Amino acid sequence: MKTSGPATRERILDHGLKAMSQSGLGGVTLGALAERVGMSKSGLFAHFQSKEDVQVALLQHMAAVAAARVVEPAMRAPEGLPRLERLVKNWFGWAQRAGLPGGCPVAAGLFEFDDVEGPVRDCILEMEREWRGLLTRLVHDAVGRGHFRKTLDEDQFVWELCGIYLSHHAAHRFLRAADAHRRAAAAFASLVERASPREVKPATARGQRHR
Amino acid sequence: MKTSGPATRERILDHGLKAMSQSGLGGVTLGALAERVGMSKSGLFAHFQSKEDVQVALLQHMAAVAAARVVEPAMRAPEGLPRLERLVKNWFGWAQRAGLPGGCPVAAGLFEFDDVEGPVRDCILEMEREWRGLLTRLVHDAVGRGHFRKTLDEDQFVWELCGIYLSHHAAHRFLRAADAHRRAAAAFASLVERASPREVKPATARGQRHR
Repeated sequence: MKTSGPATRERILDHGLKAMSQSGLGGVTLGALAERVGMSKSGLFAHFQSKEDVQVALLQHMAAVAAARVVEPAMRAPEGLPRLERLVKNWFGWAQRAGLPGGCPVAAGLFEFDDVEGPVRDCILEMEREWRGLLTRLVHDAVGRGHFRKTLDEDQFVWELCGIYLSHHAAHRFLRAADAHRRAAAAFASLVERASPREVKPATARGQRHR
Repeated sequence: MKTSGPATRERILDHGLKAMSQSGLGGVTLGALAERVGMSKSGLFAHFQSKEDVQVALLQHMAAVAAARVVEPAMRAPEGLPRLERLVKNWFGWAQRAGLPGGCPVAAGLFEFDDVEGPVRDCILEMEREWRGLLTRLVHDAVGRGHFRKTLDEDQFVWELCGIYLSHHAAHRFLRAADAHRRAAAAFASLVERASPREVKPATARGQRHR
């Protein structure tokens, strides 16, 4: 059976990405993937040398899908806050909209590979750092354009934003809560409001009140 | 080999909890656990009937450990906000302090078992609902005692708090970021400040400024 060539590799990655989204990275074994794609395990070995090799290829494939689905459309929005808002809108729930039935593999990987040293953890770490770097650049642009206040702790903003994403993922995917989208939108709106240049600190407001 | 009795079961659960914390629930196989405890697989079968049976027992064991380490000491703090603050202090990073080298198994389970129907998912779901119920009761008490404002959306508070916990877990355990504790404390302090009865809404504050 001839199973080499870029088209086959692409087909393996598409099937594998769906499998990874449902069963987690750890659940993607060469045997299970071969069965899903409908080829022999040795046929699969023509494309990937090891389980880690498949997992890293799947993560890179996921990054390409996310770039096309989440990042690129957001980059067409005006710079600063509008672009950040568009990116967040595309990001939350992106996996499901991209046809990945089981949620975001990187979010799961943050909990699955915290103690598993090796190329898969390294790959997730690199992707997560790149992602947070992109978020930080957009937040920084929003500060530069006066959409956010100059005194904003940009890293803290991104840190809390990542928490909202994880809370949305857990509420939507695990708890299957009907209000997950509404709660995430409210949390993000509050985060943006606190970053606003017009925000008055409670202490100052109290001081003015007691004048 | 005689391997029955409550002491053996306890020993299996202690070893299993550490293993679960590192490799995730999915990584706890009967074979791996038997090897870790130093007994035969058939000896293990005297205590547990299936992999799911072990996983549920480990989760229940974890709940007992968390109750003793996280909840009970917090219940000695004064009711309302002080008790909530004590609970959050005990909660963040609790797994490591309880000797679980690999982080919180339930946090990982929220991402690992979002699509895996069965008794393990049901057990995590029940535990997560109980946990959020406890948090909601403490937030509600803080409102009743005037520590938080009466108009507070208590469910939103808990939702965002769970996001801070997940962000801390990812930053501390996966990214191994030195500032994880500081960022989590800042995010929680901001959440509490926004819930304060003294908090002045930016709109009101702006109105006063422009008088």
